[in-house]
Amino acid sequence: MASTRIREARESDCGDIMRMIRELAEFEKLSHQVKISEEALRADGFGENPFFHCLVAEIIPAPGESQGSLVVGYGLYYFIYSTWTGRNVYLEDIYVMPQYRGQGIGTKIIKKVAEVALNKGCSQFRLAVLDWNKKAVNLYKFLGAQDLTESEGWLSFRFEGEAMRELAGR
Amino acid sequence: MASTRIREARESDCGDIMRMIRELAEFEKLSHQVKISEEALRADGFGENPFFHCLVAEIIPAPGESQGSLVVGYGLYYFIYSTWTGRNVYLEDIYVMPQYRGQGIGTKIIKKVAEVALNKGCSQFRLAVLDWNKKAVNLYKFLGAQDLTESEGWLSFRFEGEAMRELAGR
Repeated sequence: MASTRIREARESDCGDIMRMIRELAEFEKLSHQVKISEEALRADGFGENPFFHCLVAEIIPAPGESQGSLVVGYGLYYFIYSTWTGRNVYLEDIYVMPQYRGQGIGTKIIKKVAEVALNKGCSQFRLAVLDWNKKAVNLYKFLGAQDLTESEGWLSFRFEGEAMRELAGR
Repeated sequence: MASTRIREARESDCGDIMRMIRELAEFEKLSHQVKISEEALRADGFGENPFFHCLVAEIIPAPGESQGSLVVGYGLYYFIYSTWTGRNVYLEDIYVMPQYRGQGIGTKIIKKVAEVALNKGCSQFRLAVLDWNKKAVNLYKFLGAQDLTESEGWLSFRFEGEAMRELAGR
């Protein structure tokens, strides 16, 4: 039988990752916001001082099966800094292709992120989820995450575009 | 007359910054979550590969006034990575001491963050705010920020403590 493994992404995975970034943004109904390119991902994630880290979920065929391995999900994270608890991890994206859902692959990615975070001396990891994405909300809660928007009232704000330039006096 | 300037924090500001981190957490009614120390701030922010950057607001006395300069606010930020727009800035904390509010110091800090972000090739910066902190919410909106929790439905989740260790199988 085929098996799934979670491994660190390599530069050669960037084509798959870029495709899945687009799929995730489409699912989130926000794909008009995707401005990035595969080249930028390669440069930003796989140089000397990478701006992010990425895990991929890979289906490994059983011995004797003719097809090769297949990347079917990813988790992209980076290190942030909490002024309460120090260095932590932020899971920017987590995605599993629709036809591979319901097999625990998302959970495997989250477990790996928790492992990485603890190994790096972090005590927490944060992520954001859309309120209508009930499956994800329920999974994260089931795995023990706290909804801080609900429990403490945190709202997510963003400055961009014209507002940014005006603030900077440009 | 005294004037205010926004400058990069120095290691010697860590005492002031630590004091204001505690004041901010008290204001947010979440001070039980502060576990960090001044020593950690020094090591994490002022070594070779700093985990964060910090601006401080400083009151400079007028010539002839006897008192020295005074640090009355800070903005602590770091670089994050958006899979839609690449490298961006996250403003983790912004704080002005109560007796120095209403003078535009918070706005000055935000303007400086926008300037830093644009200089570093970032097109956005994000931050989080508590829903009951109406003054801050209104200021950010006035300055052109979008409330993404309101407009897109983003919720903020966090894994920590026992949940983290269980996920990592410890």
